[in-house]
Amino acid sequence: MALSWARRHILSLADFQPAEYDAVLQTAASFQEVLSRRTKKVPALQGQVVANLFFEPSTRTRSSFELAAKRLSADTLNFAPSTSSLTKGETILDTAKTYLAMGTDIMVIRHREAGVPLAIAQEMDRLESRVGVFNAGDGQHEHPSQALLDLFTICLLLDPEKPRLSLLQGKKIAIVGDVLHSRVARSNIWSLTASGAEVHLAAPPTLLPKPFAEFVTADAQNLDRQLFLHWSLNPALEAADFVMTLRLQKERMMQHLLPSLREYHQQFGITHQRLKRCRPEVKVLHPGPVNRGVEISSELMDDPQFSLISQQVTSGVAVRMALLYLMGSGKV
Amino acid sequence: MALSWARRHILSLADFQPAEYDAVLQTAASFQEVLSRRTKKVPALQGQVVANLFFEPSTRTRSSFELAAKRLSADTLNFAPSTSSLTKGETILDTAKTYLAMGTDIMVIRHREAGVPLAIAQEMDRLESRVGVFNAGDGQHEHPSQALLDLFTICLLLDPEKPRLSLLQGKKIAIVGDVLHSRVARSNIWSLTASGAEVHLAAPPTLLPKPFAEFVTADAQNLDRQLFLHWSLNPALEAADFVMTLRLQKERMMQHLLPSLREYHQQFGITHQRLKRCRPEVKVLHPGPVNRGVEISSELMDDPQFSLISQQVTSGVAVRMALLYLMGSGKV
Amino acid sequence: MALSWARRHILSLADFQPAEYDAVLQTAASFQEVLSRRTKKVPALQGQVVANLFFEPSTRTRSSFELAAKRLSADTLNFAPSTSSLTKGETILDTAKTYLAMGTDIMVIRHREAGVPLAIAQEMDRLESRVGVFNAGDGQHEHPSQALLDLFTICLLLDPEKPRLSLLQGKKIAIVGDVLHSRVARSNIWSLTASGAEVHLAAPPTLLPKPFAEFVTADAQNLDRQLFLHWSLNPALEAADFVMTLRLQKERMMQHLLPSLREYHQQFGITHQRLKRCRPEVKVLHPGPVNRGVEISSELMDDPQFSLISQQVTSGVAVRMALLYLMGSGKV
Repeated sequence: MALSWARRHILSLADFQPAEYDAVLQTAASFQEVLSRRTKKVPALQGQVVANLFFEPSTRTRSSFELAAKRLSADTLNFAPSTSSLTKGETILDTAKTYLAMGTDIMVIRHREAGVPLAIAQEMDRLESRVGVFNAGDGQHEHPSQALLDLFTICLLLDPEKPRLSLLQGKKIAIVGDVLHSRVARSNIWSLTASGAEVHLAAPPTLLPKPFAEFVTADAQNLDRQLFLHWSLNPALEAADFVMTLRLQKERMMQHLLPSLREYHQQFGITHQRLKRCRPEVKVLHPGPVNRGVEISSELMDDPQFSLISQQVTSGVAVRMALLYLMGSGKV
Repeated sequence: MALSWARRHILSLADFQPAEYDAVLQTAASFQEVLSRRTKKVPALQGQVVANLFFEPSTRTRSSFELAAKRLSADTLNFAPSTSSLTKGETILDTAKTYLAMGTDIMVIRHREAGVPLAIAQEMDRLESRVGVFNAGDGQHEHPSQALLDLFTICLLLDPEKPRLSLLQGKKIAIVGDVLHSRVARSNIWSLTASGAEVHLAAPPTLLPKPFAEFVTADAQNLDRQLFLHWSLNPALEAADFVMTLRLQKERMMQHLLPSLREYHQQFGITHQRLKRCRPEVKVLHPGPVNRGVEISSELMDDPQFSLISQQVTSGVAVRMALLYLMGSGKV
Repeated sequence: MALSWARRHILSLADFQPAEYDAVLQTAASFQEVLSRRTKKVPALQGQVVANLFFEPSTRTRSSFELAAKRLSADTLNFAPSTSSLTKGETILDTAKTYLAMGTDIMVIRHREAGVPLAIAQEMDRLESRVGVFNAGDGQHEHPSQALLDLFTICLLLDPEKPRLSLLQGKKIAIVGDVLHSRVARSNIWSLTASGAEVHLAAPPTLLPKPFAEFVTADAQNLDRQLFLHWSLNPALEAADFVMTLRLQKERMMQHLLPSLREYHQQFGITHQRLKRCRPEVKVLHPGPVNRGVEISSELMDDPQFSLISQQVTSGVAVRMALLYLMGSGKV
């Protein structure tokens, strides 16, 4: 297969090209097949080092990256912030340069500040290293691998044989919840609009202010015919093909952005009843971990007819294997 | 060798059959031999994933499981509760389902609440997954691998060539200490009575109340002729073949269940002097970590003529390799 | 190659012989070459277990040891003190004996108390185990692998083809900073004086008291013509070939040993300007992590013409591979 890939770092989906999305989807599909075997390893990154630098803790995402790296036969290093030399006053760039000097090939970086992965990538390039930097979630900016695994999960459902970006052309996708603070939503907006889907954002006004849409559409071209904002749920759900729910951070209530979880669920929580407005074959996604009974009802979350949540986690390993593989293979 | 094994999960020894005990002992013996080689690895679980979900921290037991899994060539994932999404409000079953969806083959679970491994195993079966769940200690309920490594340590001493359950027939075994709160004691009672040994429990009345014996014997058959309770040490030690000491949690004193560690040691601590009541070839066990000078005198702990504590740790790796292997081999 | 190596433990450089230094340098050079390949692993320690027992946390050093062990194909176990049974009252020697009984081949130990690695090594020998103990930093005593990686970094610069101890004969080396509290400085003094270099220590009087020199020279022979103490910077820098800076612990100020970081930098901080007193080809080292603008100016740290800091980190993996390999190969 001839893949289009010339990207050293994965930092944002804002400038991802359709051929790149298809390269990821096609590579992930072949790794998904590997994962169904009894022996689930391939030697693609043997002898290479993947360092997980999670300045913000996350067991779920870190485990997914670690497993993806191990299944590619890479050696992994985990950086635990609580026991780190950060407490000794070292700067983040110096930490990254230390892992570079140790011989790291790919750095997977999560940080609570937007832009940290980009800053590290720029420093790595300035030093003329060949290290690849992978943004595993930076502040409220982007979380590219989550959006790509969402995309893969949907495309695999639409055509298990040949998942590809064009399958989403003309589909209606609702993104429901705390859009304003969500790096997942930001990355999904790029991938879904790139696919030609219609993206409908639904949230209370405090979590989806007018300037947000202007901010997004200012960066993108022709988004006005693909991106729609709603301050209530129903218009977004109407005839939707997919409903993506976002995790609600409980601290938003203390910031007076939300009245109560109960009230949020009554207005924006997804239930079997509410899905009746969507197309009959509608599916629901959530990046996890779910607050049961808040973003989504407990019954719906556990209903395999509608919920893709478990498939998303499985896709996560395959998509991260694909991305690490594509980043690593550029180093030959 | 034709082993009797048809068990997907290892949750409790209450219903373990003699043929299963012998399958574990026989398999552990062959792995003990592997561990004596310079290269101590076998490819039995290559490409499989063993996830250590230790909701209650334990370096010692976690390291033993991790090493056992690595020596079977499995990939391991460690779940650290302090950096986990549990702080984000996810339920334990959802955490387990996430690791299932990532492709975990065996989950090793420790939790401070009794019944958590069982609940996870039931959910895994309901979902028709083939994941095996391994109880690595749940509350005050059971700790099967500890009891099996104790059994293996004793049987290996009695017949290094062919360790088997029947070697314990008619032996007298004292279990001394905080029986009431001990998951180790509960699992040991099942394995030792299954072997045909006489089991003598000795503890202060606060740590071995009458209803405890009724609770145990209500579940089991014919235990009245094998299980004996004592509120003083000497009758339990009299002509004993093995003395199993239990770890004393220091918080028991704050619960007013114990006067002082010093007084406990005077009444129930095991010393060279006290062992004179036992058979001359008596051996002492302890699940570790030991409070030196409390459950057992420091001199006795370090005396290789009597102490099997170091052998227990070594057996732990071989027995856990055997159990992971037996669980994993059922998945072909 | 015929290497001189008969050492089971690496605890201190005080009694290291020139042939041993050369064995380390020669072996590290061959591993440095391995690290430049795409597949950076060798099977030297396959099936062996390296346990990192870091009672004092250190991500940087622990990662370096872990990577070195993995590149020798060893299995690694990490002991995290916060989640350890130390909180359960186990002694350090009992912890070490547990890891011995599990089958550990090499223990890498860091502890805030001087002498802990020695005590563990003595216990391992008393038990007639063949375990090797590696001091990864004990209190203010020694940090042998740091001094050896400094030595390797310097020798590799002086002769990339054949790094050897004698290259340092007659060189002038300044060690600047908190000598009194530095285990790095203590180890460096042994290796550098063994090489025949002139070692000039420079620090404020509070961090380099007179008795310190007497303490060191009392232990060593003929150090009076190789070791010089200065309470100001310039005499140490004059015509120096290498300047080793030491990390300043910020708590020294609260101990009233230092006026302020700013004042320290003005008196002992290394800058481009100050290096003009040295020989033109002078290089600067630092064990990391650096307090930018304190021990060394930020500009100088990032100037590849003078700074060897990044090379030190890279050398660290090669030197630790060499040391683990030499320790492990003695076990055949």
